[in-house]
Amino acid sequence: MKEVSSLLGYRESIKVMDATLRDGGLVNDFNFTDEFVKKIYKANIECGVDYMEMGYRASKKVFDESKFGKWKFCSDDHIREIVGDNDTDLKIAIMADIGRHDKGDFDQKANSPVDMIRVAAYIHQMPEAIDMIEDAAKKGYETTCNIMAISNTQENDLKAALDMLGKSPVDVIYIVDSFGAIYPEEMARVVDLYSEFTAKYNKQLGIHAHNNQQLAFANTIEACGDGVNWLDATYNGMGRGAGNCSMELLLGFLKNPKYNVYPAFKFIEDNMVKLKEDGIVWGYDLQYLITGLLNQHPRTAIQFTKDKRTDYAEYYKDMLI
Amino acid sequence: MKEVSSLLGYRESIKVMDATLRDGGLVNDFNFTDEFVKKIYKANIECGVDYMEMGYRASKKVFDESKFGKWKFCSDDHIREIVGDNDTDLKIAIMADIGRHDKGDFDQKANSPVDMIRVAAYIHQMPEAIDMIEDAAKKGYETTCNIMAISNTQENDLKAALDMLGKSPVDVIYIVDSFGAIYPEEMARVVDLYSEFTAKYNKQLGIHAHNNQQLAFANTIEACGDGVNWLDATYNGMGRGAGNCSMELLLGFLKNPKYNVYPAFKFIEDNMVKLKEDGIVWGYDLQYLITGLLNQHPRTAIQFTKDKRTDYAEYYKDMLI
Repeated sequence: MKEVSSLLGYRESIKVMDATLRDGGLVNDFNFTDEFVKKIYKANIECGVDYMEMGYRASKKVFDESKFGKWKFCSDDHIREIVGDNDTDLKIAIMADIGRHDKGDFDQKANSPVDMIRVAAYIHQMPEAIDMIEDAAKKGYETTCNIMAISNTQENDLKAALDMLGKSPVDVIYIVDSFGAIYPEEMARVVDLYSEFTAKYNKQLGIHAHNNQQLAFANTIEACGDGVNWLDATYNGMGRGAGNCSMELLLGFLKNPKYNVYPAFKFIEDNMVKLKEDGIVWGYDLQYLITGLLNQHPRTAIQFTKDKRTDYAEYYKDMLI
Repeated sequence: MKEVSSLLGYRESIKVMDATLRDGGLVNDFNFTDEFVKKIYKANIECGVDYMEMGYRASKKVFDESKFGKWKFCSDDHIREIVGDNDTDLKIAIMADIGRHDKGDFDQKANSPVDMIRVAAYIHQMPEAIDMIEDAAKKGYETTCNIMAISNTQENDLKAALDMLGKSPVDVIYIVDSFGAIYPEEMARVVDLYSEFTAKYNKQLGIHAHNNQQLAFANTIEACGDGVNWLDATYNGMGRGAGNCSMELLLGFLKNPKYNVYPAFKFIEDNMVKLKEDGIVWGYDLQYLITGLLNQHPRTAIQFTKDKRTDYAEYYKDMLI
């Protein structure tokens, strides 16, 4: 049983990462206005958030630039239009999605407003992920590796990947519950497994959760209580499908006086309410519970949502085949 | 750390209680149609739910019958119109709310379709609650005591109440997180405290959670993993304010083959979707997070919802005074 002091006190080592533009961008094809992005940047500073992920730096050879908002590509120039020289305590992260990125798009850190490259990869892409991490580290960036879909991964493969990452220059290894399939008591065991390697290789550990079973916040604070320091959240939980751990919940939970929840409430009422009114849809619903429960990718549930279907029982039967 | 077997296996001793009509009735003043009630009764039977709470048996001396649907009063006659002789494995429960009930309204069990009386009480009402429990037990009913608002209760008072209840004829003692203020790691400690008394006096232990911080399901499965057998849930989480632990999440989680989640999906798509479309509002929103975080009764948040306000930051400031 965890100690009372872990709830009333705080760990200086905890870092909060706002992933709204990146994971939330998957909901609206990254069509955030500059005004919205400036406001979320300001909110993060006021909330005491440690890192802000601006989006993906996707390869324009893979994706048609005209079909997405600019935060799918996150050029240094576009980021600078928002953050200038970013003379704040908030650090800037972007994500490279292995297989859909281009190393050539990443300048030296000295020439970029970006502080951290987060490398997202499936387990079979580990060598390419490590190649990217090495390149980014050499250029001067902080790096993370976010191994996706681990609820579908064999434990032996995961151990091999963690060992490879341990030997790489990566700074933070993220536990990613892509399918929202993990229960908190499983999360405790996952943290235990990852911790063997992060302790051995002196790496930091992070958590990125999805809300398919209304467990994104619960899994995040479970992991936090188990020693995970890097915590992902998004305002109003905005993120793909059922969304993520809500920033307002996480900031309410964390006791470090440097974090403030009030600016999060203000940002949400001024900006997120309108997004929802404009028809952008994310968050818990039965189709996402179903993919979470069945440990599957949410893509069919996202289509179900787009089609405005509510025949959950029929969908469930289809998913069982 | 909990054992893997607790997730893959199951405990025969677990009982699922559907509280939709009772806690959900607080959202629509118990104005459920007979057709809806018949369908939820049928869904519960098909899902393998163990107990169905039909509503409150509130005193007509305290509440004006014309202002509420019949499930606030739950007469034996009205229940019979739905369940007949209830020749099923599903047992019928109703709630008596201490201070707003009338012992005279409860006939002998032999004359009633009701199997269980759930007695809800604040801690200062314990003697009256026990008086009611003794009366109900004498009449032949199973009984529970649901001590409300325990996140606002001193531990010594709680221990005294649990000791009093231990000596009473009550069958099940419920942990009730009325304000949705308890985190799972606190829930583990609360279960530990209650278990001292339920073990000593050979009582069963139950959990009734609220979703203010998106933790109703997480707290329910935390408690379940810690040995709590009686689990409350509502379809689509329908319940006061932020609502409760969702039946569809709980049935997805429980592995006993007697439980089926499919009829829950079907019931929700055929009935709950329409309730929401008709403007009945419940579920997580920032005003409920705020009362949960501040460990307060949700009544002002419910008013905020009724007034269709979204000025969360202003509301938060008001609540801090």
